[in-house]
Amino acid sequence: MIRHIVLFTWKADATDEQRAAVTAELGRLPGLIPQLRSFTVGGDAGINQGNHDYAVVADFDDVDDYVVYRDHPEHQAIIAERIRPILASRAAVQLEL
Amino acid sequence: MIRHIVLFTWKADATDEQRAAVTAELGRLPGLIPQLRSFTVGGDAGINQGNHDYAVVADFDDVDDYVVYRDHPEHQAIIAERIRPILASRAAVQLEL
Repeated sequence: MIRHIVLFTWKADATDEQRAAVTAELGRLPGLIPQLRSFTVGGDAGINQGNHDYAVVADFDDVDDYVVYRDHPEHQAIIAERIRPILASRAAVQLEL
Repeated sequence: MIRHIVLFTWKADATDEQRAAVTAELGRLPGLIPQLRSFTVGGDAGINQGNHDYAVVADFDDVDDYVVYRDHPEHQAIIAERIRPILASRAAVQLEL
Protein backbone atom coordinates (compact mmCIF):
# COMPACT_ATOMS: atom_id res chain seq x y z
CA MET A 1 0.00 0.00 0.00
CA ILE A 2 1.08 3.58 -0.63
CA ARG A 3 -0.02 6.21 1.85
CA HIS A 4 0.37 9.74 0.44
CA ILE A 5 0.51 12.47 3.08
CA VAL A 6 0.65 16.20 2.44
CA LEU A 7 0.41 19.13 4.84
CA PHE A 8 -0.15 22.75 3.82
CA THR A 9 0.08 26.15 5.41
CA TRP A 10 -2.12 28.84 3.91
CA LYS A 11 -1.24 32.44 3.24
CA ALA A 12 -2.36 34.81 5.99
CA ASP A 13 -4.85 36.49 3.64
CA ALA A 14 -6.55 33.21 2.60
CA THR A 15 -10.28 33.64 3.21
CA ASP A 16 -12.58 31.16 4.93
CA GLU A 17 -14.32 30.75 1.58
CA GLN A 18 -11.05 29.86 -0.17
CA ARG A 19 -10.12 27.37 2.57
CA ALA A 20 -13.56 25.74 2.43
CA ALA A 21 -13.36 25.48 -1.37
CA VAL A 22 -10.24 23.27 -1.05
CA THR A 23 -12.18 20.72 1.00
CA ALA A 24 -15.24 20.90 -1.25
CA GLU A 25 -13.19 20.43 -4.42
CA LEU A 26 -10.93 17.67 -3.05
CA GLY A 27 -14.06 15.89 -1.84
CA ARG A 28 -15.04 15.30 -5.47
CA LEU A 29 -11.92 13.23 -6.18
CA PRO A 30 -12.98 9.87 -4.67
CA GLY A 31 -15.90 9.89 -7.12
CA LEU A 32 -13.55 10.59 -10.03
CA ILE A 33 -10.48 8.48 -9.18
CA PRO A 34 -11.40 4.88 -8.30
CA GLN A 35 -7.77 4.16 -7.39
CA LEU A 36 -8.35 6.11 -4.12
CA ARG A 37 -8.80 3.47 -1.40
CA SER A 38 -9.09 5.94 1.47
CA PHE A 39 -9.09 9.75 1.45
CA THR A 40 -9.10 11.97 4.53
CA VAL A 41 -8.75 15.73 4.19
CA GLY A 42 -9.38 18.74 6.38
CA GLY A 43 -8.20 21.65 8.42
CA ASP A 44 -6.14 21.39 11.59
CA ALA A 45 -8.26 20.72 14.69
CA GLY A 46 -6.56 23.47 16.72
CA ILE A 47 -5.35 21.21 19.54
CA ASN A 48 -1.70 22.30 19.35
CA GLN A 49 0.14 25.52 18.53
CA GLY A 50 2.51 25.80 15.58
CA ASN A 51 0.75 23.29 13.35
CA HIS A 52 0.28 23.38 9.62
CA ASP A 53 -3.22 24.41 8.46
CA TYR A 54 -4.43 21.51 6.33
CA ALA A 55 -3.83 17.80 5.71
CA VAL A 56 -4.49 15.24 3.00
CA VAL A 57 -3.98 11.50 3.61
CA ALA A 58 -4.70 9.27 0.61
CA ASP A 59 -4.20 5.50 0.40
CA PHE A 60 -3.57 3.48 -2.77
CA ASP A 61 -2.90 -0.15 -3.57
CA ASP A 62 0.45 0.64 -5.22
CA VAL A 63 2.67 3.34 -6.69
CA ASP A 64 1.00 3.20 -10.11
CA ASP A 65 -2.39 3.96 -8.55
CA TYR A 66 -0.89 6.85 -6.57
CA VAL A 67 0.59 8.29 -9.77
CA VAL A 68 -2.83 8.14 -11.45
CA TYR A 69 -4.15 10.33 -8.61
CA ARG A 70 -1.12 12.62 -8.54
CA ASP A 71 -1.31 13.35 -12.26
CA HIS A 72 -5.11 13.24 -12.71
CA PRO A 73 -6.29 16.37 -14.57
CA GLU A 74 -9.11 17.06 -12.08
CA HIS A 75 -6.60 16.85 -9.21
CA GLN A 76 -4.13 19.07 -11.03
CA ALA A 77 -6.90 21.61 -11.72
CA ILE A 78 -7.75 21.80 -8.00
CA ILE A 79 -4.06 22.32 -7.16
CA ALA A 80 -3.74 25.10 -9.75
CA GLU A 81 -7.04 26.87 -9.10
CA ARG A 82 -7.81 26.28 -5.41
CA ILE A 83 -4.63 25.31 -3.54
CA ARG A 84 -1.73 27.18 -5.15
CA PRO A 85 -3.40 30.64 -4.91
CA ILE A 86 -3.52 30.40 -1.10
CA LEU A 87 -0.50 28.13 -0.51
CA ALA A 88 2.29 29.36 1.78
CA SER A 89 4.15 26.04 2.31
CA ARG A 90 3.82 22.34 1.59
CA ALA A 91 5.30 19.21 3.21
CA ALA A 92 4.76 15.73 1.77
CA VAL A 93 5.76 12.09 2.27
CA GLN A 94 4.73 8.87 0.54
CA LEU A 95 4.92 5.83 2.82
CA GLU A 96 5.22 2.32 1.41
CA LEU A 97 3.32 0.11 3.89
CA MET B 1 -11.75 10.13 15.47
CA ILE B 2 -8.54 12.13 15.70
CA ARG B 3 -5.88 11.52 13.06
CA HIS B 4 -2.49 12.90 14.15
CA ILE B 5 -0.06 13.50 11.28
CA VAL B 6 3.54 14.62 11.57
CA LEU B 7 6.27 14.91 8.94
CA PHE B 8 9.97 15.36 9.68
CA THR B 9 13.06 16.30 7.78
CA TRP B 10 16.33 14.98 9.19
CA LYS B 11 19.62 16.80 9.48
CA ALA B 12 22.00 16.07 6.61
CA ASP B 13 24.42 14.31 8.96
CA ALA B 14 21.78 11.93 10.40
CA THR B 15 23.11 8.38 10.00
CA ASP B 16 21.18 5.40 8.65
CA GLU B 17 21.47 3.91 12.14
CA GLN B 18 19.90 6.99 13.74
CA ARG B 19 17.06 7.02 11.18
CA ALA B 20 16.38 3.32 11.69
CA ALA B 21 16.34 3.77 15.47
CA VAL B 22 13.40 6.18 15.15
CA THR B 23 11.28 3.51 13.46
CA ALA B 24 12.42 0.80 15.88
CA GLU B 25 11.63 2.91 18.93
CA LEU B 26 8.30 4.29 17.66
CA GLY B 27 7.32 0.73 16.83
CA ARG B 28 7.24 -0.06 20.55
CA LEU B 29 4.49 2.50 21.23
CA PRO B 30 1.42 0.50 20.10
CA GLY B 31 2.37 -2.10 22.73
CA LEU B 32 2.62 0.59 25.40
CA ILE B 33 -0.25 2.95 24.54
CA PRO B 34 -3.54 1.09 24.04
CA GLN B 35 -5.24 4.32 22.95
CA LEU B 36 -3.43 3.98 19.58
CA ARG B 37 -6.06 2.65 17.14
CA SER B 38 -3.78 2.74 14.08
CA PHE B 39 -0.11 3.69 13.77
CA THR B 40 1.82 3.97 10.52
CA VAL B 41 5.38 5.29 10.50
CA GLY B 42 8.32 5.23 8.12
CA GLY B 43 10.67 6.93 5.74
CA ASP B 44 9.67 8.57 2.48
CA ALA B 45 9.37 6.09 -0.40
CA GLY B 46 11.43 8.24 -2.76
CA ILE B 47 8.75 8.59 -5.46
CA ASN B 48 8.88 12.41 -5.60
CA GLN B 49 11.56 15.06 -5.20
CA GLY B 50 11.44 17.66 -2.43
CA ASN B 51 9.60 15.55 0.10
CA HIS B 52 10.06 15.44 3.84
CA ASP B 53 12.03 12.43 5.13
CA TYR B 54 9.70 10.72 7.58
CA ALA B 55 6.01 10.41 8.48
CA VAL B 56 3.89 9.36 11.45
CA VAL B 57 0.11 8.87 11.13
CA ALA B 58 -1.64 7.88 14.36
CA ASP B 59 -5.39 7.44 14.86
CA PHE B 60 -7.29 7.81 18.15
CA ASP B 61 -10.92 7.62 19.21
CA ASP B 62 -10.89 11.17 20.57
CA VAL B 63 -8.76 14.14 21.63
CA ASP B 64 -8.23 12.78 25.17
CA ASP B 65 -6.73 9.57 23.76
CA TYR B 66 -4.47 11.57 21.45
CA VAL B 67 -3.24 13.64 24.40
CA VAL B 68 -2.40 10.44 26.32
CA TYR B 69 -0.14 9.47 23.40
CA ARG B 70 1.29 12.97 22.91
CA ASP B 71 2.29 13.29 26.55
CA HIS B 72 3.19 9.64 27.27
CA PRO B 73 6.64 9.45 28.93
CA GLU B 74 7.86 6.69 26.57
CA HIS B 75 6.82 8.79 23.58
CA GLN B 76 8.44 11.89 25.03
CA ALA B 77 11.65 9.93 25.67
CA ILE B 78 11.80 8.83 22.01
CA ILE B 79 11.29 12.44 20.89
CA ALA B 80 14.06 13.67 23.20
CA GLU B 81 16.59 10.88 22.62
CA ARG B 82 15.96 9.68 19.04
CA ILE B 83 14.07 12.33 17.06
CA ARG B 84 15.25 15.73 18.31
CA PRO B 85 18.99 14.98 17.89
CA ILE B 86 18.54 14.47 14.13
CA LEU B 87 15.53 16.75 13.53
CA ALA B 88 15.83 19.55 10.97
CA SER B 89 12.14 20.48 10.62
CA ARG B 90 8.69 19.29 11.67
CA ALA B 91 5.20 19.79 10.24
CA ALA B 92 2.07 18.53 12.01
CA VAL B 93 -1.73 18.53 11.76
CA GLN B 94 -4.44 16.88 13.82
CA LEU B 95 -7.59 16.10 11.82
CA GLU B 96 -10.96 15.62 13.49
CA LEU B 97 -12.76 13.02 11.37
